[in-house]
Amino acid sequence: MLKTPLARRLPVWIEELGQIGRTEADGLWRTPYTPEDTQAQDAVAGWMRDAGLQVRRDAVGNLFGRLPGTTRPDEVILTGSHLDTVRNGGKYDGGLGILAGIVMLAEVLETSGRPARSLEVVALVGEEGSRFPLAFIGSKAITGELSPEELEIRDAEGISIAQAMRGVGLDPSRIQEARRSDLRGFLEFHIEQGRILQDQGYPLGIVHTITGIKQARVLVDGRPDHAGTTPMTSRRDAMLGAAEMVLRIAEQITALGHPAVATTGRLQARPGGVNVVAEQVEFTVDFRHPDPAVLERMAAMIRGTCDEVAHRRGLGATLHVFLEHPPVPMSPEVQAALQASAEELGLKTLSMASGAGHDAMVLAGRVPVGMLFVPSREGRSHCPDEFTPEGEIVPGLAVLARTLHRLATV
Amino acid sequence: MLKTPLARRLPVWIEELGQIGRTEADGLWRTPYTPEDTQAQDAVAGWMRDAGLQVRRDAVGNLFGRLPGTTRPDEVILTGSHLDTVRNGGKYDGGLGILAGIVMLAEVLETSGRPARSLEVVALVGEEGSRFPLAFIGSKAITGELSPEELEIRDAEGISIAQAMRGVGLDPSRIQEARRSDLRGFLEFHIEQGRILQDQGYPLGIVHTITGIKQARVLVDGRPDHAGTTPMTSRRDAMLGAAEMVLRIAEQITALGHPAVATTGRLQARPGGVNVVAEQVEFTVDFRHPDPAVLERMAAMIRGTCDEVAHRRGLGATLHVFLEHPPVPMSPEVQAALQASAEELGLKTLSMASGAGHDAMVLAGRVPVGMLFVPSREGRSHCPDEFTPEGEIVPGLAVLARTLHRLATV
Repeated sequence: MLKTPLARRLPVWIEELGQIGRTEADGLWRTPYTPEDTQAQDAVAGWMRDAGLQVRRDAVGNLFGRLPGTTRPDEVILTGSHLDTVRNGGKYDGGLGILAGIVMLAEVLETSGRPARSLEVVALVGEEGSRFPLAFIGSKAITGELSPEELEIRDAEGISIAQAMRGVGLDPSRIQEARRSDLRGFLEFHIEQGRILQDQGYPLGIVHTITGIKQARVLVDGRPDHAGTTPMTSRRDAMLGAAEMVLRIAEQITALGHPAVATTGRLQARPGGVNVVAEQVEFTVDFRHPDPAVLERMAAMIRGTCDEVAHRRGLGATLHVFLEHPPVPMSPEVQAALQASAEELGLKTLSMASGAGHDAMVLAGRVPVGMLFVPSREGRSHCPDEFTPEGEIVPGLAVLARTLHRLATV
Repeated sequence: MLKTPLARRLPVWIEELGQIGRTEADGLWRTPYTPEDTQAQDAVAGWMRDAGLQVRRDAVGNLFGRLPGTTRPDEVILTGSHLDTVRNGGKYDGGLGILAGIVMLAEVLETSGRPARSLEVVALVGEEGSRFPLAFIGSKAITGELSPEELEIRDAEGISIAQAMRGVGLDPSRIQEARRSDLRGFLEFHIEQGRILQDQGYPLGIVHTITGIKQARVLVDGRPDHAGTTPMTSRRDAMLGAAEMVLRIAEQITALGHPAVATTGRLQARPGGVNVVAEQVEFTVDFRHPDPAVLERMAAMIRGTCDEVAHRRGLGATLHVFLEHPPVPMSPEVQAALQASAEELGLKTLSMASGAGHDAMVLAGRVPVGMLFVPSREGRSHCPDEFTPEGEIVPGLAVLARTLHRLATV
């Protein structure tokens, strides 16, 4: 299974990291620039040193462990993932990619020696946006896309990112120094966070595209009537309109087939009285597809459904898209390298879209990027029962090490 | 139209009372034991005195204006309604019944002299439950059903009813003194708050039953999944389950026909993230029917629908009825008196159920009770555009005065 003594420590590290930022609900909540974040960074830095890596922290707080290349040390192949978690999240989302990178850099060093290019593993800052309403802080700093204005974004307590950075000894005026021009590849090792690999029986997924995401708010306008004195047939009930829209959208998107998804996770009625017919209902629709043309068609379908239901029920409906991430294709070269490594090891892989956003999405704009997925038990993620057993991590580790070595040997 | 000089002041009083407790949204919010309540009571007390009535306030804060009877002064026929409003309510709900009572007691006095029994008009305290989560404070005190424990119920600021009473000079330990044993009839004059009279072309409604009301909370349990990584067909989405339940309940209750109604005015999803499939959705169902057997059948239908949808979708569903008011029949004698008065005046009446709860419902347990409805323009109520034009109030006033005289003359 895990060959080197260091690699055998991986399951222990997962558990140790999984204690830092523990919530009462038995999950994790570890967010940027907090004492838990510092504690986690210190632990990870120690493990990087144990693995024989050179450790440094950049201007935004990303933590790097480096194995310098022999002949082309200024060309860097990067692996890793994010150190933060969602609220009440699990131990594998993000953390696994960092720890896997550390042990596999050590494995490359031990089994093949230092390659021509440098290899680095990174613990990225603030991917989830679960403290500040800004995702991808660390990866945006690396590409130079993190703006000084964004550092004024505040958490629920009113503390800005810049203030929080100062609190952990970082100087927000220096974020430009985190920008990298020496990266020649980025390979993110991550749990799938879905159940496709499990259901279809593949040990590994190679991501071809990070899906396109749109999020919309729909406002349905009706008339507030007395729940006791207004006959059913005389109402303009915003709740019934919204319920029908939510159901119909889900039916239509389901009919499009995998990997189209649409989700209403939030719905609010006004005035919200038990005995008042809803005057106004606001709900969200998160919808995703890796094909930009299909994503646009989904947007049109959703808008059409809302209009049709509203018109038939005598309601108003307005739809406002407030978030758009176009689909991001992964590098064909990195996909091919992953595929070649898996074939050499006799492992089956599924070429698949990632349904979630990742730092890889940000870095893909500047660097050849690939993602390797290992299965998520029952597809559970963003919750305490997120789990991938050791036996399902190991095949991915082998492909990761082999691919890192391959990309660093030119 | 309005004959006596005093009666001609009614439209002015409606407007004056409609300024007290005015909200920024152009509606009214007047709740018990507040400065607005005191201001309204003072205005009403002044108008009672103008009408030649003896004014007193009871231990819970109900305000009475009395025309003593000649031969049986200890037997009282009461009219009136409540002085408080819902949040952002209108000028007619409650207030009209008080003001109509004042002008019609004066009219009885002027046209027929004092009858044998005493006549009283009351401005009742706290019918709506829009400050404290307790409705019918004043009428429950009159029947002796208001308990000392209920006085510990608190408003949104944590102030108890007892504390609020002390703040306006009332002694909560004396609420038993508000109990009345001398009432021989109660006649509530009220706007319909629906559009049945308008739609069917009747100037007056005589209530035969105050509808039965049940309010239930439905908790739908699913599984919180990632909105991007979980295929549509692998989800147990509490939001879709709840949306289907809400729609199906409305369809089934609509199919039962008038006067069956069911309303979902409140719905909340947890965890509530835009990108998380809802784990749990809680929604309310307010459902009403004047026939107790039909009301029970509706409860069974609603429960059955929730169970069926939950089972088919792999969700859990629990339904908890948290409020039950059985249907309350009005007194046949008072209905007959109203009917006789209307016929003498050549006015058509519709015998109808009240879809809303009223103080009459509470008093009906102890006293022969009747309710007279005048039309609500477009059925609007519990909102600022609640309106009944003077010309549609006048026929009701005539029937009210005649019926009060009839009930007080024995």
